[in-house]
Amino acid sequence: MNNGSAVPHDNYVEHCRNAGMDTDPRGHVMALKEPIRLDNGTLLDNISVAYQAYGTLNIDKSNVVLLCHALSMDQHAANPHPITGKPGWWNFMIGPGKVIDTDRFYVVCPNVLGSCMGSTGPESINPETNEPWGIDFPVITIGDMVKVQAAFLDRLGIGDLFCIIGGSMGGMQVLEWTARYPDRVFSAVPIATAARHSAQNIAFHEVGRQAIMADTNWDNGRYYSTGEPPRKGLSVARMAAHITYLSESGLHAKFGRELQDGDALSFGFGADFQVESYLRHQGSTFVDRFDANSYLYLTRAMDYFDLAADHGGALVNVWHKTQTRFCVVSFTSDWLFPTSENRAIVHALSAVAADVSFVEIDTDKGHDSFLVDVPEFRDILRGFLGSAADNRNI
Amino acid sequence: MNNGSAVPHDNYVEHCRNAGMDTDPRGHVMALKEPIRLDNGTLLDNISVAYQAYGTLNIDKSNVVLLCHALSMDQHAANPHPITGKPGWWNFMIGPGKVIDTDRFYVVCPNVLGSCMGSTGPESINPETNEPWGIDFPVITIGDMVKVQAAFLDRLGIGDLFCIIGGSMGGMQVLEWTARYPDRVFSAVPIATAARHSAQNIAFHEVGRQAIMADTNWDNGRYYSTGEPPRKGLSVARMAAHITYLSESGLHAKFGRELQDGDALSFGFGADFQVESYLRHQGSTFVDRFDANSYLYLTRAMDYFDLAADHGGALVNVWHKTQTRFCVVSFTSDWLFPTSENRAIVHALSAVAADVSFVEIDTDKGHDSFLVDVPEFRDILRGFLGSAADNRNI
Repeated sequence: MNNGSAVPHDNYVEHCRNAGMDTDPRGHVMALKEPIRLDNGTLLDNISVAYQAYGTLNIDKSNVVLLCHALSMDQHAANPHPITGKPGWWNFMIGPGKVIDTDRFYVVCPNVLGSCMGSTGPESINPETNEPWGIDFPVITIGDMVKVQAAFLDRLGIGDLFCIIGGSMGGMQVLEWTARYPDRVFSAVPIATAARHSAQNIAFHEVGRQAIMADTNWDNGRYYSTGEPPRKGLSVARMAAHITYLSESGLHAKFGRELQDGDALSFGFGADFQVESYLRHQGSTFVDRFDANSYLYLTRAMDYFDLAADHGGALVNVWHKTQTRFCVVSFTSDWLFPTSENRAIVHALSAVAADVSFVEIDTDKGHDSFLVDVPEFRDILRGFLGSAADNRNI
Repeated sequence: MNNGSAVPHDNYVEHCRNAGMDTDPRGHVMALKEPIRLDNGTLLDNISVAYQAYGTLNIDKSNVVLLCHALSMDQHAANPHPITGKPGWWNFMIGPGKVIDTDRFYVVCPNVLGSCMGSTGPESINPETNEPWGIDFPVITIGDMVKVQAAFLDRLGIGDLFCIIGGSMGGMQVLEWTARYPDRVFSAVPIATAARHSAQNIAFHEVGRQAIMADTNWDNGRYYSTGEPPRKGLSVARMAAHITYLSESGLHAKFGRELQDGDALSFGFGADFQVESYLRHQGSTFVDRFDANSYLYLTRAMDYFDLAADHGGALVNVWHKTQTRFCVVSFTSDWLFPTSENRAIVHALSAVAADVSFVEIDTDKGHDSFLVDVPEFRDILRGFLGSAADNRNI
């Protein structure tokens, strides 16, 4: 299924090859056969989906777990990352005998539309100009990502999903899937997410976008050929976002006011405090693996997400005929997607007597808790998946 | 006392004069006679303090209220702002018959060291080079600001303060005053502040600084002569900070997901949502009245603030002989300087049997509550000041 020639030019692949990588850093790549009508009206053709898969598809194709990644993540959930070399972001969750047991389930993790790890996005070639799209790429929505995922699964010959799982922006995709294709989803785990993006979250995203656009290297999105991407702007955006992924108590526990070098203040603007050094590192490493234009598009897609608005203004309308069994998970210290937002989803599901369980996990790891190996979280997910799989005779 | 010639060159004054202003936009300016030894070891000479004063000093000079302003504020507390033309930031609090009654009190509000409204700061002339200091200006502390204020009051012939009041960075100055000059402070009102800057707050400040430094116009702080200050970088810094001044619930109540133009998404990167438009406005207007280098210095001073560390590591050591009567105020929705930080101050004061009252005011206005006319806040401050003044026979 590896179809590396589907994309005529790919900055990501080129970047990885220049770094001496010999395998395709995208994993597998699937070219869609048909164009997709996007929510803004554009008919987008030549769509590629890069993805990773773990485990084996069973004969009746009933064991598929679709994993939806978050804003700054990608398809490399359980394999070493091709750029950073680090373990996949859910390596502790996925594998033989692990919570998402690849001896039992077939796990598919596609890179979302608009991202920069091999799926079609602003870095891809616009067939009309033979140049990268840049910000001529159409503004996409969570719904568009999900439509592309559905067409991608069709191409793989996969109809129903045993389970769909995702946190944050991935959780938005989970919710959208259960609303748009209720008959294709047996079970769903939206984690640390919301049915609509809040004013405060839109505000933080806007800061990130303005930081990128303020970088003269951004040049209205036309930086791909210059070799000078807006590193500083994207780094500032990442730093601001990263604070929102953690919690005040977690930051205090991890760093407090500890100084980087002993106990003397420098009386300068270097990284005196460990928390400054940590943030700077987060910013500078992010720009090595992420495209600034993709950051604009994915934050915008999250801002636009408002499931109730798409269903007559009431969340209770979204799932009125759902047969999907849900497990909604939130974390006490998550102030970006607080428990209240997750509870709103649970209330809407309960109102239509859906099969839903809800767990709020006590941790100081903030929004990023879903990317951290929290034992209680692992146990809950294992229990939910095991029970659902038994019920489906997987 | 107006000593406009104390500073040989002043960008702020020049800026205001170019805008057609004929009075001195600094209000009054006082040149200190002696140099001040800063916490970083530098002996800083030629210090000017710009200030505003309201009311009349009584004969025994017992009615002085020292007002300490916050990071992005200035001395223009109760007069129209010379640049924006807007009412002073505490106009609703200060005046004849108001809470801080200028028929009874003499209110002095100095622009802090390191700021950009006429007091000595990075925009001032370095006498050694005859050029603006830029980032050759020494890194200052809250303690340095307070030492300058004390010397400034000496020059005014004022010994004791009836009361010292300030919120946020102003509250840090209040705490520093009560620790450093306990015999000079009859009463003190630290508002929405902390005895040390938290890891999360240092992190947010670092994002702001990096945003400024990422702007190529910043040019290592040497932008005064170019006419091209780092507007974009400072604007991003202000946008990020502004979110932290509000609350999630306040933003939701004020903006929600309301669109700027009707109910249609633009599918672009303009300001679709009202909250985006609001934030952009906050950023772009701030750069008209604030100096980017000053922003670096004042945020750094706040980061360095750790009153316990300066007193053997325990906050309880700070006030062990205090005679000052305190009124500590926090706001329920303030997540930048949450009630817990203010309560830590109260606990330390209570532990030494200091005269302290503590009020947590229920409001959704976030950290900025102290700049908003919250009736309960007004009533409490009026009560505290009245009682203290009666006790002192003012």
